[in-house]
Amino acid sequence: MNSISSFRKAVVLLSGGIDSATTLAVAKKEGFAPYAITFHYGQRHSREVKYAKTVAKTIGAEEHLILDINLRAIGGSALTDDIEVPRDRSSIGEDIPATYVPARNTIFLSYAMGWAEVLGTGDIFTGVSAVDYSGYPDCRPEYIDAFEKMANLATKAAIEGKKFRIHTPLISLSKGEIIKKGLSLGVDFSLTHSCYDPRPDGKACGRCDSCQLRLKGFREAGAEDPVAYVDR
Amino acid sequence: MNSISSFRKAVVLLSGGIDSATTLAVAKKEGFAPYAITFHYGQRHSREVKYAKTVAKTIGAEEHLILDINLRAIGGSALTDDIEVPRDRSSIGEDIPATYVPARNTIFLSYAMGWAEVLGTGDIFTGVSAVDYSGYPDCRPEYIDAFEKMANLATKAAIEGKKFRIHTPLISLSKGEIIKKGLSLGVDFSLTHSCYDPRPDGKACGRCDSCQLRLKGFREAGAEDPVAYVDR
Repeated sequence: MNSISSFRKAVVLLSGGIDSATTLAVAKKEGFAPYAITFHYGQRHSREVKYAKTVAKTIGAEEHLILDINLRAIGGSALTDDIEVPRDRSSIGEDIPATYVPARNTIFLSYAMGWAEVLGTGDIFTGVSAVDYSGYPDCRPEYIDAFEKMANLATKAAIEGKKFRIHTPLISLSKGEIIKKGLSLGVDFSLTHSCYDPRPDGKACGRCDSCQLRLKGFREAGAEDPVAYVDR
Repeated sequence: MNSISSFRKAVVLLSGGIDSATTLAVAKKEGFAPYAITFHYGQRHSREVKYAKTVAKTIGAEEHLILDINLRAIGGSALTDDIEVPRDRSSIGEDIPATYVPARNTIFLSYAMGWAEVLGTGDIFTGVSAVDYSGYPDCRPEYIDAFEKMANLATKAAIEGKKFRIHTPLISLSKGEIIKKGLSLGVDFSLTHSCYDPRPDGKACGRCDSCQLRLKGFREAGAEDPVAYVDR
C-alpha cells in the first residue's frame, strides 16, 4: 500500500486561477505529493489568494505556503501600481501589456526553488502557457529553460546531485485545452478566480486580458464558465 | 556640467557588510547613480539592515529600498532557522556550511532585476566573491552568468533591447584585496557589520565564518578592523 512518503514531493505555484489549479491537479495525477505556494504580492486582485486556499484544499495539496511579498514597493505594473488595467484589447499576445509585472515569475520561481530545496525535492510545477497568454516574456519556454539552468547552479541541492526540473505541463496548450484537461481531472473551476480588476462584490469584469482569455477558453472547451461577470 | 540625470542608474545589492559597501563605492566610482536595495529577510543578524542604511547614506545612494521578505517561512539555514551557526571552522570554502540560505542570492537578484526594470536600467551590482567566501554556490561566476542569461529572457526591458548586466567587481578578489579597495575608495568600515551571530550589545562573535573571513581580510590588508568583538 502506498503511504504518502512513497510519493515524490513537488512544489506547485498556485495563484487561484484556472491554469495553476489545473497544474496542481496534473502534478497530483502524475503521482507527486504537491506542496502549493501562493503569493500575496500586493496584486490588485488579491482576492485570488482566498481562492488559492480553497483550490489547494479541494485538490489536496500536502501543504500550502502563502507568502507575503510586497511587489508594490517596486511597482511598474497595472497589477501593482496606479496604472489602469487595459480592457477590451484585441491584440492579446502580440505585445507586452501594462499588466506585466517586472520579475514576477522569476521571484515566484526563486521562492519555489528555495522551498523545494528545503523540502528535499527538485521538482517544481508552474502553469505558464505560451499559447493563449498575455505576451509576458517570463511565460515562454526559453525563459523556463534558462531558469532551470540557473537553478542547477544556484543551489546546494543541485551541486549534491538533486537536479531541478521546472515542469510546465500547460506550456503548449490553448486555454480551451487547459480547461478541458482541468475538467477531465475533476477541477472545480467555480473555485477559481481570473479577473485582474474584480468589482467589490467579487464579480469579474469580463474585459481585462485575463477575463477575455478565460471566456475564450470556456467557449473553445464548450463548457459553461461557472463564475459571475458584471457586464457581459 | 554633469547633472545627476546624465549618470546611468544601477541597482546595487547592499547588505551592510564589507563586500557590498565596497561594491556600492565601486559602482559610484565607475560613474553610476546607485540605487541600493537591502533585504530584511528574517536573518539572525538583522541588525545589518541598520548598518546598510548608514552605508547607503554615507557612500551616497540615490535611493535605498529596504524590502521585508520573510525567508524564515522557508527556513533551512542557520541564518533563518533554529540551526546553530558554525564556529571556528577550519574548512571555510571547502564545503557548503549551515549558513547557506536556500535561494537567497537568486531571490535578491530577482527583486533587483524587477526594480532595475522599473528604474529603466539593466545594470545590477552584487558584491559576491568566489575567493574568500563560505562556499555558497550562488556566489560563483557560472551562477552569475546563468542568472544574467535568464534575466535577459525574463523581462520586457531585455526584449526591448535594454540588456541586463550583473556586475561583480569583487568576484576574483580576496578579502584582503576587497578591504584595500574599499579603503582606497574611502569606505568607512566602522559602519559595516559582518557577524552572523552578534551578541545583544552588537559585538561580533569573532568565530563564525563571516567574522573569520573579515578578520583574515583585515590582517591581509594590514589594517585595523574598527568594529568590536567579544572573544578574540
